[in-house]
Amino acid sequence: MTTVSPGRIPDLDTPALLLDIRKVQRNASTMVQRCQDMGVSLRPHMKTHKTIEAGEIMTNGTKRHIVVSTLAEAEFYAGAGFDDVLFATPLTQDKVQRCARLVTQLEQFHVMIDSSAGLDAIKSTPLSGKQWSVFLKVDCGYGRAGVSHDSVEGVELVRSVVSTPGVQFAGLYAHCGDSYHSDSPQEVKAVGHRTAQNILTFAARLKQEGIECPTVSIGSTPTCSQPADSMGQLTEVHPGNYIFYDVQQSLLGSCTLEDIAVQVMTRVIGHYPGKNHMLVDCGWTALSLHSFGQLPTGFGIIDGHPELKLSSMTQEVGKVHAVEGTLDFDKYPIGTVLKILPYHACATACMHPRYYVHSGEDIVAVWEPCRGW
Amino acid sequence: MTTVSPGRIPDLDTPALLLDIRKVQRNASTMVQRCQDMGVSLRPHMKTHKTIEAGEIMTNGTKRHIVVSTLAEAEFYAGAGFDDVLFATPLTQDKVQRCARLVTQLEQFHVMIDSSAGLDAIKSTPLSGKQWSVFLKVDCGYGRAGVSHDSVEGVELVRSVVSTPGVQFAGLYAHCGDSYHSDSPQEVKAVGHRTAQNILTFAARLKQEGIECPTVSIGSTPTCSQPADSMGQLTEVHPGNYIFYDVQQSLLGSCTLEDIAVQVMTRVIGHYPGKNHMLVDCGWTALSLHSFGQLPTGFGIIDGHPELKLSSMTQEVGKVHAVEGTLDFDKYPIGTVLKILPYHACATACMHPRYYVHSGEDIVAVWEPCRGW
Repeated sequence: MTTVSPGRIPDLDTPALLLDIRKVQRNASTMVQRCQDMGVSLRPHMKTHKTIEAGEIMTNGTKRHIVVSTLAEAEFYAGAGFDDVLFATPLTQDKVQRCARLVTQLEQFHVMIDSSAGLDAIKSTPLSGKQWSVFLKVDCGYGRAGVSHDSVEGVELVRSVVSTPGVQFAGLYAHCGDSYHSDSPQEVKAVGHRTAQNILTFAARLKQEGIECPTVSIGSTPTCSQPADSMGQLTEVHPGNYIFYDVQQSLLGSCTLEDIAVQVMTRVIGHYPGKNHMLVDCGWTALSLHSFGQLPTGFGIIDGHPELKLSSMTQEVGKVHAVEGTLDFDKYPIGTVLKILPYHACATACMHPRYYVHSGEDIVAVWEPCRGW
Repeated sequence: MTTVSPGRIPDLDTPALLLDIRKVQRNASTMVQRCQDMGVSLRPHMKTHKTIEAGEIMTNGTKRHIVVSTLAEAEFYAGAGFDDVLFATPLTQDKVQRCARLVTQLEQFHVMIDSSAGLDAIKSTPLSGKQWSVFLKVDCGYGRAGVSHDSVEGVELVRSVVSTPGVQFAGLYAHCGDSYHSDSPQEVKAVGHRTAQNILTFAARLKQEGIECPTVSIGSTPTCSQPADSMGQLTEVHPGNYIFYDVQQSLLGSCTLEDIAVQVMTRVIGHYPGKNHMLVDCGWTALSLHSFGQLPTGFGIIDGHPELKLSSMTQEVGKVHAVEGTLDFDKYPIGTVLKILPYHACATACMHPRYYVHSGEDIVAVWEPCRGW
C-alpha cells in the first residue's frame, strides 16, 4: 500500500532502499514504447519489486497482463484488482487448490506446466463453470526448466492439454535466462534471436499438428532491452528487472548506470585508519551478497565515488576500502551518506520491507512489497 | 507474535522454514548450562532469529540481558517487555534520538561506541533523570570494528566516557568473528583464548588508570560452543547463532548436524532427465546464497540425502543434481518433500516472514521475526 510519508532523503534512517520515481516511470515507458514499436504485447514480470504501485506503472495503469513467480504474489495482485495473471512456475499438485481459487476469482488466471505431472494436477481439480488456462514452459536453450523446444515430448504434452476437457491451451512461454551469460550486446541479441527462433519453430510444429498457439512469449530483461529483430514475430514478451535496472544489467548493456532507479542509502559509522577501512551501516541484510565481489568496486557501485570499494559485508555492516591505496578518511566524516547501486536489484529489493520512493530529495511514497510464498 | 496454526508438516506450502522446537530448547539449555558452569553471564544475541519467542527461550524466560544488532530489533524487544538491551552497533548521530527514547523507556538500555564521534553523539543528547550506559567496542584481533585492544586511544576514549556527566561506563565488548576462519576446534579455542586475554588485559590497563570495568564481554557462537578455559575469567559472553546452529557451525565443531534446529522444506517441482537435474521450489529467496557452493552438496545439505546436491538457485527455484553420476529420478517423484539444512542460519532465517515451529510432525506455533532497521 502507498503510504505517503512526508520527509526528505537526508532525514531517512539508514540503511534504506531508495527508488527514483522518475527513473522508474521512464524505464517503464521506454519498455512500453519498445514493445509497441516491435508490435508485441508486454506482460511485465512482478518479481523484482513485488509491489502494487510498480505493477500499476509497468502495466501502464491497466493492472492487467502480468507474470508472477509465487502464489503469494498472485494472491497479492489479485486482491488489488489485477487480472490476467500468469503464475510462471511449473504447477504441482500441492499448489493446485490455491490456483483453482485464483482461476475462480479472476477473469484470467494462467498456470504453467512442463510435465504430465502438472497436467495430472490440473485434471485432479476440475472447476465448475471455468476452464483452466495453461501455458507450456519451453526450454529454448537456457537449460533450467521446461520441455525441450525440439522434443517430441513437448508436442505430445500440448496434445494432451488440448484434448483435456476443461483445459484451454494458452500458449508457449520461455525464459531466456542464458542472456545473463552474455559478454556483449551482440551476444544478448543472439540469445534473443535463438530463443525466438526456437519457440516460433515449436509453435509452427504445433500448427502442423493442427494446434493453434494463441500466445508465444519469451522474456528476460537483457533480451527485451536490446531485442533481436526476430522477436517482433512473437506475440508477447515478459521482462521484469528493467523497472529498476541494476549494475549487472548495465554490464550487459541493458541500461546505463544513469537508468538504475534503485539505491541503498547508508551512512559511514566508523573510521579505522589502522586497518585502512571504514564501516557503513549496510550489511547483506540491506544489499544481499549477490555480486560475489565480481566488481572492481566490490559488492556494488557507490554512486559518485568510483574511488571506494565495498569490500565485504556481514549481517548489518559493510567494510569500505579505497579501490587503490590509502583511504582518505577526511573526505568521509562519520555520518557521511553514501548511496550504493546494487549489482542485482531483485536480490536487493527482496531484503527490504519498504521502499522509499523519491522525486529529487523529497520522499513521495513508501511502497511495501509482498513477501513469502 | 505466536500464532498457533494447527496442522502438520506435510500440509505446509513450500518453501517453508521449519524450526524443531525441541532442538531450539536443547541448544538454549546447553548454552545456559555451559555459561553457569563457566561462571559467566549469558547475554544472548537476537540477530539470528529476531523473534520474541526465541528471545524468551534464550533468556531462560527472564526477557532480560540481550544483544541486538538493529534499532528495529531494540524497539521490537522493548515493546515486548524485554529489558537490559544492548544495541551492539557503533552509535552515530543519526541514531541517537531513537536510542534516547529507549534509554527512557527501559530500565537498562546500553549503546556501544568505538570513537569520539559516538561519544559526541551521546553528549549532544543529554537525558533528563537518566544516564547513558555505554559499552566500548574493542577489536581483539577480528579486524572489523572497535578500538584496538592494545591502543592508547582506547584507554583515552574510556577516560573521556567516565569523565562525561550523564554517562556511565558499562564495560568492554568484543566480537570474535575471526573464530569463523578456524580450521579446527583447537583454533576456535585459540581464538577464544586470545580474545579473552586481549580484552582482559585491556580491562587491567583501565584498572591501572583507576577505571573499573563492570562488564567484560566477548562472543561468537564457535568460541562459546567450544570455550577456552580462560573465558571463565570474563564476566559475560554473547553468542547468538547457537539457538538454531547450521552447517557452517557443524564444520567449525560448534555442533553436530543433529543439533541444527532449522530446515528449509521444499518440494520437487520438475524432472529434466535430458539435463540430469530436477527442480525444487527453493530459490535464494528461501535459502540465501550464503554458502557460495563451498559444500560438496552445494548450497546446503539435503537432510537424509547425502547423494543430492543443490547445485544452483535462482530467485524462486533450485537445481538439484546427483553428487555423483546420474540422478535416479524414480526415487524423487514430483511432489517429493526435501528438507535443506542451511549453511548459514542467520542468512536463511532473514529470508522468511514466518517460521513454522514443530514438535515431531505437528506445527505447534508460527513465529514472526522483526524486519528492517
